[in-house]
Amino acid sequence: MSNRINNFDENYIYKILKKNFKKNNKNFLNNIGDDASILKLGNKKYAVSCDIQIENVHFSFKYSKPEEISYRAVIVAISDLLAMGARPEFFLNSLNIKKGTSSKIIDKIFYGFKKAARDFNLELIGGNVSSSKQFSLDLTVIGVVKKKYISRGSSVGQNIYITDNLGTASAGLKILKNKKKYEGLNVKKIIQAYIKPELNIHKLNKLISTNLIKSMIDVTDGLTIDLKRLIKYKDKSLGASIIWEKIPIERSLYKFFNQKTIENLVMNGGDDYKFLFTVDEKDKKVFESKIKSKKIKVHNIGNTDNTGVIKLIKSGMVKKIDSGGFLHRF
Amino acid sequence: MSNRINNFDENYIYKILKKNFKKNNKNFLNNIGDDASILKLGNKKYAVSCDIQIENVHFSFKYSKPEEISYRAVIVAISDLLAMGARPEFFLNSLNIKKGTSSKIIDKIFYGFKKAARDFNLELIGGNVSSSKQFSLDLTVIGVVKKKYISRGSSVGQNIYITDNLGTASAGLKILKNKKKYEGLNVKKIIQAYIKPELNIHKLNKLISTNLIKSMIDVTDGLTIDLKRLIKYKDKSLGASIIWEKIPIERSLYKFFNQKTIENLVMNGGDDYKFLFTVDEKDKKVFESKIKSKKIKVHNIGNTDNTGVIKLIKSGMVKKIDSGGFLHRF
Repeated sequence: MSNRINNFDENYIYKILKKNFKKNNKNFLNNIGDDASILKLGNKKYAVSCDIQIENVHFSFKYSKPEEISYRAVIVAISDLLAMGARPEFFLNSLNIKKGTSSKIIDKIFYGFKKAARDFNLELIGGNVSSSKQFSLDLTVIGVVKKKYISRGSSVGQNIYITDNLGTASAGLKILKNKKKYEGLNVKKIIQAYIKPELNIHKLNKLISTNLIKSMIDVTDGLTIDLKRLIKYKDKSLGASIIWEKIPIERSLYKFFNQKTIENLVMNGGDDYKFLFTVDEKDKKVFESKIKSKKIKVHNIGNTDNTGVIKLIKSGMVKKIDSGGFLHRF
Repeated sequence: MSNRINNFDENYIYKILKKNFKKNNKNFLNNIGDDASILKLGNKKYAVSCDIQIENVHFSFKYSKPEEISYRAVIVAISDLLAMGARPEFFLNSLNIKKGTSSKIIDKIFYGFKKAARDFNLELIGGNVSSSKQFSLDLTVIGVVKKKYISRGSSVGQNIYITDNLGTASAGLKILKNKKKYEGLNVKKIIQAYIKPELNIHKLNKLISTNLIKSMIDVTDGLTIDLKRLIKYKDKSLGASIIWEKIPIERSLYKFFNQKTIENLVMNGGDDYKFLFTVDEKDKKVFESKIKSKKIKVHNIGNTDNTGVIKLIKSGMVKKIDSGGFLHRF
């Protein structure tokens, strides 16, 4: 942007918040900037989060059906609660409708909500409706924290794991944006990773039940940026090394994209909604034997260190990765 | 709108919700369509609500300063909690920023939040940030219900009260839209009722402590529509009579507007954030003596009946009022 004043991104907001908003209420247990806010309400802990989906920013009616958009909005919103170790229970929906929208689209939007509510055992408890220039859905989700909540913020000497393939969702979006090119090819699985990311809550619950996860985040804006958010949340002096060859990638991507594109999709694509977490080195053996006995698979893609730098190691070559991924800019 | 399919308003959404979303979770205590959702969380009850403010729908940078817009967004949001008898404690802010917005505006938006947080003893606990074509702020607020929550939905044989003047806020907006006409005139008080509606929480708490309020709503979209929402929420067969001469109106309005305009501002203007509530006829004497001893004043503007019709009685003439006020249409 030409005007220097306007040249800011979402990180600017976090700086304002950090500087100006001090915690006063002892029932607010974590801090702004985590995946969700943890509150002590009554005698229990809850996670609360809101997440907006705006037309032509987060989704397009060109690529998704209305019922897919609302269903995905629920996935996106509850992913933040799941990343804190909370069980989603309730959601509110602030629906902002562009004038001229057909009521059939609204019916389908609510059909998607109904389906998601049933699939994830959630209850729609309210919201509001407004007219708007741009169609958007802003979901607030509330979930209960059964045991301990899991925050962002890693420590030195931890192993970094990812629950599942990265890059598939953004590859799916790329295909949707260029449908003609892929006509007749078997790209359904890839597209589906964007349209309806699989959260695999069952697997996540098993992971959490090991009690060995020390920090966690959901990968929404790309591995590069979300890894930084995960490890540096409490301690800026932390660094990490990620081994490219250990990152799980959907095999069929190699049929449709070259190496360079795949690296970009995996590292900076986002929209995957897989979970990135750390386990202490000392707990590694116990953790891995526990998950083996639970019959689940996760991927140890690297480890934290005290260098302050995040590095990608590919074919033995070390590359600093300090920017990338999706940041809202204004 | 020309296309019949598109000819729907926000009531259409409530119909979808009523038809398709059945209550399953026993911890959701009231119903969609109330001012806020009441949840049993842990061993306490909480009220949760979200309320969006969209540029050129709910506010304009032409009429309000950025810090006034965010401050008012907090007022608007917590008003829903207050109308349920809850004490606001936390808020999340989903901030959607139009590209090209200056960072100074963002600073001021957060200054308004900070001021409101201090004035209302609230804690900002999170939110999210996105780019958008239209500037908007979507607030989610959470408050604790200390005793019983107060729902919408009146009964036959109740007196209808309003806490304070109606029509002033929309008169203020009318003046702001035509500033030149009112230059040099003493309209500050009227404008202020729009810019920063006075919630008078102290008075509301005293009213609630009588334990005699049977139903309540905040007047946001105009007396006509909000009265209908209040009394018919549980029983469509209810009606009401409102006596025009009993509605409190800021005296200075008569200096600037004619009778017809004032009636429209009072009945359909909205934006007042005063509280409309009912008290059983049998409790009327006790209620009024209680509030007298608490040194607060409210206005008995009418009563409910079993006619199904809402009537305005002005100079002894009865007029049916079944539409009016602000409804989002698409």
